Amino acid sequence: MKPSIRSIPVKTASADYPVYVGHGLFAEIPRRLGLAKSPRRVFVLSSPEIWSLWGERLLAAFPDTAAPTVLFLPAGERYKRMAQVERLAAELAKAGADRSSLLIAFGGGIVGDVGGFLAAIYMRGIEYVQVPTTLLAQVDSSVGGKTGANLAVGKNLIGSFHHPRAVFADIEVLQTLPDRELRAGLFESVKAGVIRDAALFRFMEKNADSILGREPAALQRVIEASIRMKAEVVGIDERESGLRMILNFGHTLGHAIEAATHYRSLLHGEAIAWGMLAALQIAVSRGTLGPDQAERIAAAIESYGPLPPFRSTADRLLDAAGRDKKNRAGKRRFVLPKGIGDAVVVEDVTVAEMETAAQWVVRQARR
Amino acid sequence: MKPSIRSIPVKTASADYPVYVGHGLFAEIPRRLGLAKSPRRVFVLSSPEIWSLWGERLLAAFPDTAAPTVLFLPAGERYKRMAQVERLAAELAKAGADRSSLLIAFGGGIVGDVGGFLAAIYMRGIEYVQVPTTLLAQVDSSVGGKTGANLAVGKNLIGSFHHPRAVFADIEVLQTLPDRELRAGLFESVKAGVIRDAALFRFMEKNADSILGREPAALQRVIEASIRMKAEVVGIDERESGLRMILNFGHTLGHAIEAATHYRSLLHGEAIAWGMLAALQIAVSRGTLGPDQAERIAAAIESYGPLPPFRSTADRLLDAAGRDKKNRAGKRRFVLPKGIGDAVVVEDVTVAEMETAAQWVVRQARR
Repeated sequence: MKPSIRSIPVKTASADYPVYVGHGLFAEIPRRLGLAKSPRRVFVLSSPEIWSLWGERLLAAFPDTAAPTVLFLPAGERYKRMAQVERLAAELAKAGADRSSLLIAFGGGIVGDVGGFLAAIYMRGIEYVQVPTTLLAQVDSSVGGKTGANLAVGKNLIGSFHHPRAVFADIEVLQTLPDRELRAGLFESVKAGVIRDAALFRFMEKNADSILGREPAALQRVIEASIRMKAEVVGIDERESGLRMILNFGHTLGHAIEAATHYRSLLHGEAIAWGMLAALQIAVSRGTLGPDQAERIAAAIESYGPLPPFRSTADRLLDAAGRDKKNRAGKRRFVLPKGIGDAVVVEDVTVAEMETAAQWVVRQARR
Repeated sequence: MKPSIRSIPVKTASADYPVYVGHGLFAEIPRRLGLAKSPRRVFVLSSPEIWSLWGERLLAAFPDTAAPTVLFLPAGERYKRMAQVERLAAELAKAGADRSSLLIAFGGGIVGDVGGFLAAIYMRGIEYVQVPTTLLAQVDSSVGGKTGANLAVGKNLIGSFHHPRAVFADIEVLQTLPDRELRAGLFESVKAGVIRDAALFRFMEKNADSILGREPAALQRVIEASIRMKAEVVGIDERESGLRMILNFGHTLGHAIEAATHYRSLLHGEAIAWGMLAALQIAVSRGTLGPDQAERIAAAIESYGPLPPFRSTADRLLDAAGRDKKNRAGKRRFVLPKGIGDAVVVEDVTVAEMETAAQWVVRQARR
């Protein structure tokens, strides 16, 4: 049975747009964006890999007379940099892109972040659309308007809040997603369940086999619920001044693990999974969360594993965590679950608690 | 007599902030921004030249315990580039700037544009303040939220709309402004008068001597009125979808002159003055403006001259004008005065009219 196309609204103070989830969405793009009768130019940013797999399918949606111009960003975190953004802006300019042009970011999280940032700053902002091709990008990074690039000294230190005009999360495109990347994305969906959607959590707890088996209906259920959760949170707190911070569950130590391993050993979702497991230690030891619930959360995370090992030291993680940009005016913000489907942001996690959690995760990850 | 400090409000859909105009404003900055009791970090972006002249005065406004950290951008259009923005972002990160930090852009238009853009994209946006030190920056570029950098293929092709928290236009700092730069800024004030403020125009028509003599009261009158005009226009049309386009009077051919002379022969304000004179030719020949009024406008512009000559050809100007990013979906937008204090945006200026005006200005500029 082919699941139908769903439209999930994102409504924030500055934007209002749909996230479409379903099968075979590419063919819908021009019509749903009203491009058929528009003279506006369309540009696509993609990675060579995604383009070779799915480019033809995307192009087929456009009439020959209005074929988009394709720009490429090589795959890999090291291309998520200002120099690439500048090169792409120059390519847009040379190809005649103007303020009315539309950019389609067609790829994983890096293409989405760089494409969104490029759209945010090209001629002080043009419209763009997200067509995420990884599960992680579908359930997380394509929704909410965060765009950006890395500096040598840290990830995502430059960027803009710039919402897409629409997001097309096509389940079909996940067919070619490597298994490890599927799992990495699913960790973010487990996170969505833990912090705000107990029903999603329970579904993921019970249906790991069909989800990992990529059964369309199961995947659609997970993707839809994850996006709904994020859309709701972003709608309430667009600029991450309050509620949106709960999305960072697992991210304080997760980011530290990524940085300490130079973004080479783990995928983002995997580092976040390790970060969530470490955060559970803190939550249980300070009594925020009961040990039974922590056990259930850990088991759910692990059912989407295996979590690849990594080698580091608690010291290195703490060093890296100190540079986590989530900290404001010296406060160490930390997200802790209060149960299944509920989380809280605390500011009083001590260095000692962080140290214990870091030691624990370094030990676990060595096995 | 020392003129008092005036506060001109800028109110747009996305921002609401004051532009202060007066003498000796530096000392007011910490208090008016509420920095005295705040633990937030303050950073200053300046040029080495401005810093050597006025840096000590700015620093004196801050208590020793809260001295701002100073970053530098070398003077010159060629440093208004992404590579510099990236370097400055890395310096902010290394110096510990976080989302609550404040950046003061302390310099001319380039420092203001780059500083504003840096603030727009550092950690997806931090607050900043404009302290413009050239007349052009005071009356034009520091107000309205346009920020950005150049690409090799064109000026201001990347950037953001990011409003400052306040603007401090200090008349005292103009004491050290070279005469040519004073005149270049005054052309933009003449423009303000022509397109929307007949009283300002008449004042500038009659008081060129005291204005060019930098009499404080006369300068304050001109600066205040220019800023009021811009604040009003930007308040009505923040994103330049309508009214704000009138600010581009003189800019279609002015930008073309700048580009065709590789930004070397003329200051921005001078190129705009030439562009206004050329636009007057079109306005008169199509009857938008009477010849007497055109004569008055030309005389007012010239009273703030001399306008430096430049060498180019009509062909080169037209080529450059074709690449003016102000054109949207193939339309050639052109601002023409309809009288003193009134202007209109037209879309039907023909290539032949442009050619005639370009030939005229190239001939005039050769003398």
